[in-house]
This record gives sequence, structure tokens and C-alpha cells, in this order.
Amino acid sequence: MTDDAIRAVIPFKKENAKSRLSEVLSETQRQELALCMLFDVISALEKSGRFDEIDILNSSFSSIMNTEFPSNINVLLNEKSLNDALNEYLQKSAEHWNGTVLIIMADMPLVTEKQLIELTNMTADVVIAPGSGGGTNALLIRNPEKFHVDYYGTSFLDHLRIAKEAGMTVDVYDSFLVSTDMDEPDDLVEDRKSTRLNSSHQ
Amino acid sequence: MTDDAIRAVIPFKKENAKSRLSEVLSETQRQELALCMLFDVISALEKSGRFDEIDILNSSFSSIMNTEFPSNINVLLNEKSLNDALNEYLQKSAEHWNGTVLIIMADMPLVTEKQLIELTNMTADVVIAPGSGGGTNALLIRNPEKFHVDYYGTSFLDHLRIAKEAGMTVDVYDSFLVSTDMDEPDDLVEDRKSTRLNSSHQ
Repeated sequence: MTDDAIRAVIPFKKENAKSRLSEVLSETQRQELALCMLFDVISALEKSGRFDEIDILNSSFSSIMNTEFPSNINVLLNEKSLNDALNEYLQKSAEHWNGTVLIIMADMPLVTEKQLIELTNMTADVVIAPGSGGGTNALLIRNPEKFHVDYYGTSFLDHLRIAKEAGMTVDVYDSFLVSTDMDEPDDLVEDRKSTRLNSSHQ
Repeated sequence: MTDDAIRAVIPFKKENAKSRLSEVLSETQRQELALCMLFDVISALEKSGRFDEIDILNSSFSSIMNTEFPSNINVLLNEKSLNDALNEYLQKSAEHWNGTVLIIMADMPLVTEKQLIELTNMTADVVIAPGSGGGTNALLIRNPEKFHVDYYGTSFLDHLRIAKEAGMTVDVYDSFLVSTDMDEPDDLVEDRKSTRLNSSHQ
């Protein structure tokens, strides 16, 4: 177990969220689903007791205008692309705040505090939790000034490479619950497992 | 850690294997892929050092006719459906052999001995490792006479229910590497991660 201070950042957009689910859910339903999943991720982060700060990184002002976020959550606005906004965030974190950053996706309906505790207990400079399809669902970065993100495509491989090129140690957090995101209609079946999975973990 | 004797059984068919990959791979390529993945699973089982016996449960004689399996592997033939063949196997195991059974799928290209050691270290009567799409990729059963399988559909939920109805304790082994199977063309991207994943685990 490590005792470094950790802040979590969750990139989020409400407009046109989960567009690949548009054949089965309306825009309003997709926005509600996106918000529900975001609040579940926030709840898991809080229950883990591991995070000193929790930031939501919003891509548009209209996303946050009519949404009430819990008062202890910092809501940041950055209209740049996901990668540019996150890399700016990492640099600012490194300048103003001496600690570790966890970047975590907002659409992980099965994640619980248990996985977040296990992941933050890992001691490598960079810990990557894969998402399905070659993605990265959670990314713990110690020394964020040495790292930059490259999401989209097979970002899992890109993040392994970036860490190694920066001379950082890397480990992989292996979890089905963290890997399960909600992008395609077929993913909705995984959500049915959620209550059963969590009730069977004693 | 438990010290019970464990036998592993891998259901396998070579003919028409991985039919949902037929748009990107020929029948011969799919058979080769199926065999490669089977041998990878056998190798992981052997390296884990946890299994007293390893059985391949074949659904057709022609599947095994021209395939050389390692000499320490028992090759069984049962032309019944997957569920009937496995349930017959569980009953025979309970009658003739006093121990635990692990049913493991043949198409898990990312599984290594590490996951098999962790999974068999879990002490519940039934340990389920979910597969993507609601499936079951590995199923450890202590007291196999009390259990029966029900694969296809959301078998993960069915296996949780069956264990609870039988009064057996259940736990879930949470692993992205075990959850990743190779059914659809989109799954092929996961295989690219394999070497990197395993090389980053030190």
C-alpha cells in the first residue's frame, strides 16, 4: 500500500453522450444513462477513501449548466479535445499539486470501491486498467509531468509504450469489472450482472 | 490457498469452430486459431501447477482424429450437447474421483498461469469467472455432484442462481484477461495486447 495523495479526474460530456447507443436509446435516455454511470463512478471513488480530490473534466459549458454535481466535486471546463484537455490537466496537476492522478472513464457501471483500492495499492509509476476493444478505462499516473495520454484506438498499447519511453515502471490492473464500459448496444447486457456481481462479493 | 485435488476440463470442437469469425477467417484458419488457443490454455493450466488431471472434452470423433494432443492430456469423446456432456462429466467425476473440477473454455488467448493460481486459491464452493456478453469463461466447482451447468445465453447469471439454489457458496473471479474470449471479429483486437500484457507483468 502506498500513501501518496491521489486526485481522480473523470472526463465527461453529456451532449451526444454514448452516441453508439442511439439505435436503442433516445438522446434524453442516453444523457440520463451517462449521468447515472458518472454518479456511480463518483460514488465508488468516494467509498474507496483513496482520493483527496475528485475532478470532473467537462468538454462543454452546456453539459454542466443544468446538472447538479455533489458539492465536494470540482467541475472543470476545457473545450479542447479529450487528449489535449487531459494533457493540460496533467501538466497543471504537476505544477500545482504534488501527487498522483487517476484518470477514470465515466461509463463503467460495474466498478466498485474494491477495484479502486486494489488499483491504487499497485506501486508502479503507471498502472493501466484495460477497457474492451484495446482501450484504457483507468490510468493511474505517479509523476504526471513525465507522462501524456493518447486515447482513442488501441490506447492500451499506446499508454504502455508512452510509459516505457518515459522510463516509468508500468503494471496492468486486470479486472473484468473495470474493463466493462458501455459503448455499444451489446454492452447493455453486462449491466444486468451488476447487482448480482456486487451481491455475490462478500 | 486450498489443497484439494483439481481436474480441469476443456470443452473443444475443431469443426466449424469460431463460426462467427467466418467473415474474416477461412475454415482452416479458424481451426488453426482454435487449436492455438486450446494449446495456450493447456500451457497455462500446466504452468500453474494446480491441476492433477487435464481433460479435453471433444464433441466429435473427427475433431480429434488428426490432432496430436500432449500425451499427458486425457481426450474424452462425448457427442451430446455442451451442457449434457459437461453435466455427465460432472456426475462421473463425482462418482469416480474425489475432488474439484474446473471447466475452462478453449478460446481465452490472454489467460496465464497467474489467473489460474488466483482463481483456484479462492475458497468458495463455486467460483465463476465471467466472460464478455454475460457468459462464463471459467467455473471452479467443489462438490461437483451438487452442481449442473447451463451454458449459452447469460450463463453467468444462471450459474450464480444454480449454485445458490444448491446451497453452495459462490464467489466471482474478476479478470479482464479471463473474460476475453474470441468469438467475434472485433475480439481479434484484444489478441494484439497479449504479448505486451504478459511482458509488462513482472
